[in-house]
Amino acid sequence: MTRGRFISLEGGEGAGKSTQLRALASALRDHGIDVVETREPGGSAGAEAIRALLLTGEADRWSARAEALLFAAARADHIEKTIRPALERGAWVLSDRFLDSSRAYQGMGDLNDADILELHRIGSGDFLPDRTFFLALPKAEAQQRARSRDGDATDRIGGRDASFHARVASAFTKFAAQEPGRIRTIDASGHPEAVTLRLMDALSDLIP
Amino acid sequence: MTRGRFISLEGGEGAGKSTQLRALASALRDHGIDVVETREPGGSAGAEAIRALLLTGEADRWSARAEALLFAAARADHIEKTIRPALERGAWVLSDRFLDSSRAYQGMGDLNDADILELHRIGSGDFLPDRTFFLALPKAEAQQRARSRDGDATDRIGGRDASFHARVASAFTKFAAQEPGRIRTIDASGHPEAVTLRLMDALSDLIP
Repeated sequence: MTRGRFISLEGGEGAGKSTQLRALASALRDHGIDVVETREPGGSAGAEAIRALLLTGEADRWSARAEALLFAAARADHIEKTIRPALERGAWVLSDRFLDSSRAYQGMGDLNDADILELHRIGSGDFLPDRTFFLALPKAEAQQRARSRDGDATDRIGGRDASFHARVASAFTKFAAQEPGRIRTIDASGHPEAVTLRLMDALSDLIP
Repeated sequence: MTRGRFISLEGGEGAGKSTQLRALASALRDHGIDVVETREPGGSAGAEAIRALLLTGEADRWSARAEALLFAAARADHIEKTIRPALERGAWVLSDRFLDSSRAYQGMGDLNDADILELHRIGSGDFLPDRTFFLALPKAEAQQRARSRDGDATDRIGGRDASFHARVASAFTKFAAQEPGRIRTIDASGHPEAVTLRLMDALSDLIP
């Protein structure tokens, strides 16, 4: 049995991660691949319970430090209970957000990138995605898409302001430059089907 | 306003931590000290929510790694929301368990002591108790007391076996030897009032 591949999709709100995750799963299934779709925070029973703590309540319910620890705990559970077992039985796993979201969202304030990577090491060892796609949108298009889905953006994380999201986008760009083998920036503008084709093209070396 | 003192009580089950915490608080109040009694995991609204995740469910609900991250998250919240504000207004804080419990319980398996200390640094900086008391009981007396309170020992943590608890006791002894200034071993055998007198004696240098 060949071990499956673990792919994470990253990007700001409105970049189309959820849409592309479903489309990519479907395209991979057309290649005969068993695909598990998952998300963070969450993706296992324990991690979903932690997700409920993270996404409900006031914006200042958790300090940045407590939040980073909760995300790392949820991720450790997600990997152990959902992702690794699926990979070991040969399935591919697609996750809507993963470690790089924590690096971008929690690793730019009281904590830095080295702290977030250290939490990941302690929680989950050297486990990383085989490939991570950063769905990049021109700023104007991202803002327009975000406005059109305002109704979704009411949880603790979604309510943060525009300058915060700009810093996050800048962080993702930096990570992609640091790890060009794992992290690939994908143009997320235009028709969704065109974006899916770009993703499949950027996975072609991994597809059997 | 003089900053208050933070005191943690540690020790295995049946060592008398809860009883001594109440008695010590009462003795300190007799000295005119404002005292806040708290506990871990828990002690703040967020940390109590994490406590509920930690103490309910099956023994294997959380991996050792996820558990250590959850304890560190709860501790960060406990310090930020409860302990530090109390100290800053001049109160003393007494906590039933703190960091050294995590070192003893979670830092002896998949994770080591350095990992637990690193989680504490990321979550809570260099915050440590002014004094930590390890309530030490001869093994036979600890076992007898633990048996007599079997009804309490039904949560995820309490259900662990005797060899596990022996390793925990050995870990506390090691920590006390490493940090003799902060961590004091107190003989917890005999009449509770005698133990409280030993604790007050070992605090005399801190009491105004």
